[in-house]
Amino acid sequence: MTAFQVQDPDYEARVRKTFAGQPTVITLGITLAKIEPGTLELRMPYDAKFSQQNGFLHGGVVSTGLDTACGLASYTLMPAAADILTVEFKVNLLAPAKGRTFRFVGNVVKAGRTLVIAEGRAFASDGDREKLIATMSATMMTITRPS
Amino acid sequence: MTAFQVQDPDYEARVRKTFAGQPTVITLGITLAKIEPGTLELRMPYDAKFSQQNGFLHGGVVSTGLDTACGLASYTLMPAAADILTVEFKVNLLAPAKGRTFRFVGNVVKAGRTLVIAEGRAFASDGDREKLIATMSATMMTITRPS
Amino acid sequence: MTAFQVQDPDYEARVRKTFAGQPTVITLGITLAKIEPGTLELRMPYDAKFSQQNGFLHGGVVSTGLDTACGLASYTLMPAAADILTVEFKVNLLAPAKGRTFRFVGNVVKAGRTLVIAEGRAFASDGDREKLIATMSATMMTITRPS
Amino acid sequence: MTAFQVQDPDYEARVRKTFAGQPTVITLGITLAKIEPGTLELRMPYDAKFSQQNGFLHGGVVSTGLDTACGLASYTLMPAAADILTVEFKVNLLAPAKGRTFRFVGNVVKAGRTLVIAEGRAFASDGDREKLIATMSATMMTITRPS
Repeated sequence: MTAFQVQDPDYEARVRKTFAGQPTVITLGITLAKIEPGTLELRMPYDAKFSQQNGFLHGGVVSTGLDTACGLASYTLMPAAADILTVEFKVNLLAPAKGRTFRFVGNVVKAGRTLVIAEGRAFASDGDREKLIATMSATMMTITRPS
Repeated sequence: MTAFQVQDPDYEARVRKTFAGQPTVITLGITLAKIEPGTLELRMPYDAKFSQQNGFLHGGVVSTGLDTACGLASYTLMPAAADILTVEFKVNLLAPAKGRTFRFVGNVVKAGRTLVIAEGRAFASDGDREKLIATMSATMMTITRPS
Repeated sequence: MTAFQVQDPDYEARVRKTFAGQPTVITLGITLAKIEPGTLELRMPYDAKFSQQNGFLHGGVVSTGLDTACGLASYTLMPAAADILTVEFKVNLLAPAKGRTFRFVGNVVKAGRTLVIAEGRAFASDGDREKLIATMSATMMTITRPS
Repeated sequence: MTAFQVQDPDYEARVRKTFAGQPTVITLGITLAKIEPGTLELRMPYDAKFSQQNGFLHGGVVSTGLDTACGLASYTLMPAAADILTVEFKVNLLAPAKGRTFRFVGNVVKAGRTLVIAEGRAFASDGDREKLIATMSATMMTITRPS
């Protein structure tokens, strides 16, 4: 993996603030587990309110976790005065999202000036062993705020 | 558009039952607005609990609505003893999900024996005019239940 | 469908020049069939040199036709001093690319300042009837050339 | 990475035969560089006939290489009497395909009974150093031939 250089030394505080400002992730019970340049990890406990017809976590919720992980992983590398926007993502749901806890990992693949490309992996765990349940490939965009 | 033939004359009751059995869509406040062979429409009021950092509906929630619309549109064409599974989807977020109500439309493009390909469109409305905010391209799979 | 406004009144000449400057499309025998603001249509005869193991047109070649149609459809709406770049695309191969002639249609869904989102449809024909064989969802980027 | 078990001990001969039976890859000058359970690597020299308007390898050709690598990587794990079909793929073009030689690597992420999910990486080289130019996320399908 490539080592990424941050443009904003205070990237961690900025990522934590943006994360905390997203009501959806709070409502879903998602928490920040790791923040590093170009990498981000989230955790979420199973919640029956966000399940599908067979009692597993809904694919849309898995996508929300992956989108957030990929977006914030990209955001670690952006300049201080930047907003972030998801342009598009593709999700492959590999196995039922069956477990007590979930882990969403986002990794930057290429950080361009305007666009950042990231990949995500979602895992389900029942305590003992973890299983890969979904992958994401995403394009994020840097929006420079007028100063 | 192609006219699709249903395999199960009771497809509407089956779709309504599967929809009602998904806690996530109930939690999000999504309701069924239209069910036709190969087409499905959902509606959702804005809910600040499911917003992102700028107060708009979260992209992951938009994806959940589109995934559900594409999945159930595909499900209208499946046989009675079938389960449905999302294999993958891609979402393009075209504009901020800013509005008081949202509409998610799913349309089947090709209904194969094992796989069904569907497309989705998400719209935001502030009462007067509606705006296209996202598109989806999805692959759904028919799982035949052992009888 | 939305009616799109061109920024460059000479868009047609510009699109024809860019098309003619792409050796790959010439090598594949692709020709321009229609150019309109936000829409582009290409045609290609079957060529066994570009087939796959069952004698049908290779999926990668179908993707090349769709990418070109989506890219040039987007390019019709860009300013005169702009280059175009494919950011990403997703292809669904719906049916074998079996036919004597192929048609690739690209349509712009949303034209932003930096990014243009387009959709493509590929059709195969044996003379009498045409069949939808593939769909594309693509993101294109405007690169402004230094003047 | 997971270690994959092959179902067909003669997978290598079967992959080589399917590869050699695809006129498109021969026309493009692509060659097989590595075959392992769940992994496949291809090489291709630059050819101006398959370039785009700036002289770089065309994105559609890069996609063809990645599709072939992902497809054959998936095919290594399929049973002897199986055909393979690309259901869909998404490509992110990260950098211009500028180089004298190209390398396309496909890796299986999940091998299901009917569907196989694979990821691809394309690299360009000018002799000294190699650069990641594109990624792919693909869904392949096993078609069982009637025996």
